[in-house]
Amino acid sequence: MVVKSELKLIKSLQQKKCRIEHGLFVVEGKKTIEEVVNSTIKLHKIFAVDSNGLVLKGVKVDKITTKELNQISSLKNPNGYLGVFYIPEKLDQIYSNWILVLDGVQDPGNLGTIIRLCDWFGITDLVCSKDTVDCYNPKVLQATMGSITRVNIHYLDLESYLNATKLPVYGTFMDGVTINKSKLPDKGIMVMGNEGKGISDTVTKLCSYKLTIPQFGGVTTESLNVASATAILLHEIRK
Amino acid sequence: MVVKSELKLIKSLQQKKCRIEHGLFVVEGKKTIEEVVNSTIKLHKIFAVDSNGLVLKGVKVDKITTKELNQISSLKNPNGYLGVFYIPEKLDQIYSNWILVLDGVQDPGNLGTIIRLCDWFGITDLVCSKDTVDCYNPKVLQATMGSITRVNIHYLDLESYLNATKLPVYGTFMDGVTINKSKLPDKGIMVMGNEGKGISDTVTKLCSYKLTIPQFGGVTTESLNVASATAILLHEIRK
Repeated sequence: MVVKSELKLIKSLQQKKCRIEHGLFVVEGKKTIEEVVNSTIKLHKIFAVDSNGLVLKGVKVDKITTKELNQISSLKNPNGYLGVFYIPEKLDQIYSNWILVLDGVQDPGNLGTIIRLCDWFGITDLVCSKDTVDCYNPKVLQATMGSITRVNIHYLDLESYLNATKLPVYGTFMDGVTINKSKLPDKGIMVMGNEGKGISDTVTKLCSYKLTIPQFGGVTTESLNVASATAILLHEIRK
Repeated sequence: MVVKSELKLIKSLQQKKCRIEHGLFVVEGKKTIEEVVNSTIKLHKIFAVDSNGLVLKGVKVDKITTKELNQISSLKNPNGYLGVFYIPEKLDQIYSNWILVLDGVQDPGNLGTIIRLCDWFGITDLVCSKDTVDCYNPKVLQATMGSITRVNIHYLDLESYLNATKLPVYGTFMDGVTINKSKLPDKGIMVMGNEGKGISDTVTKLCSYKLTIPQFGGVTTESLNVASATAILLHEIRK
């Protein structure tokens, strides 16, 4: 049995303002919980319907009923485990040689996939505009598959950040130079825009290089999904 | 007002067996409905809460109440429009120079994204194993953004299909040759595997070339999302 006030608190963490207020976020799914526990992120509490299934040495697990879990889970079909962790303190320093910048990405699944891509391609710093979806949103965490523990995510004012950088700033546009003909340097910043509107006008002015992923043939697809475009660009950066 | 039996029929189309039985599938979202109406796919009926919002010349639109739409929609927040279309007849011929093959992809969002990628990269034929998620699943259609009208999707027995082909068969594996060092031909078949298990043993035996997308650094990410990997491979094919 979990006390009511605690259930209420955990459920409230589905909202960004409550996550900020309490400095906590929720992770669901056995495998991802195990990955986060084994990272530098500090554990608050773990709840499990059947605690024997978790392989976590020296970690206390609280029992929860299926009914209670259903009440607090953000999933339609909760899968038996829920972990509550402390949001890590923000790192001010950005160290990557290549930095990915997101300007207003809204879809949690896209952000989750992009964090996973950063992890795969060794991009340790991801800078997000303040209107990008929160990285501790439950749907983002579901899509990251634990990669969130290995990528530093910074929410910054992009105008100030890009004005201050000495790195070359690349942006992806419909009318840029084809990526197939561009030679990318060893260090830089790659900006990806919002799903519908692309990169904002303010940020466009701060991009020194405009890139495009060429479409094949003359079909009418409007645009690549932002996560698919990021996959291709990070692959090109690391080639 | 829509009659009850019709509401029941449309709701049933969320299930694959009912889609097959009736030869119909459902599309939600104004923009996608417009795209499908303007394609070769045959329209059955369109329902709209406010029919004035649709730009469809000479197409009859049936009025539906918000309550009725909520009953039959597969979305948590239906957006005012629902179209019912006839599943196109299967094309037996496969014409693309490059053909993408999916071996057991399960996630509807991944299949939707992959169909959209095929459209962008001019891959007109997508061959799916029979256990791949159905392309008329509502969540797949939501992710395709209308690309479904421009990609021929075939559900085949992969063993027979790959045994019969004269094209070179490439598969993506964890232990293949890095894609950065591979020169791809003008024609071929690219096989992508299931999200968790990769390519099945039977199909692995039929792949003549094993490819890998190299990971950067020595981090512990397990794998690229199958849609992200597909984005990178199709980009490489078309370069």
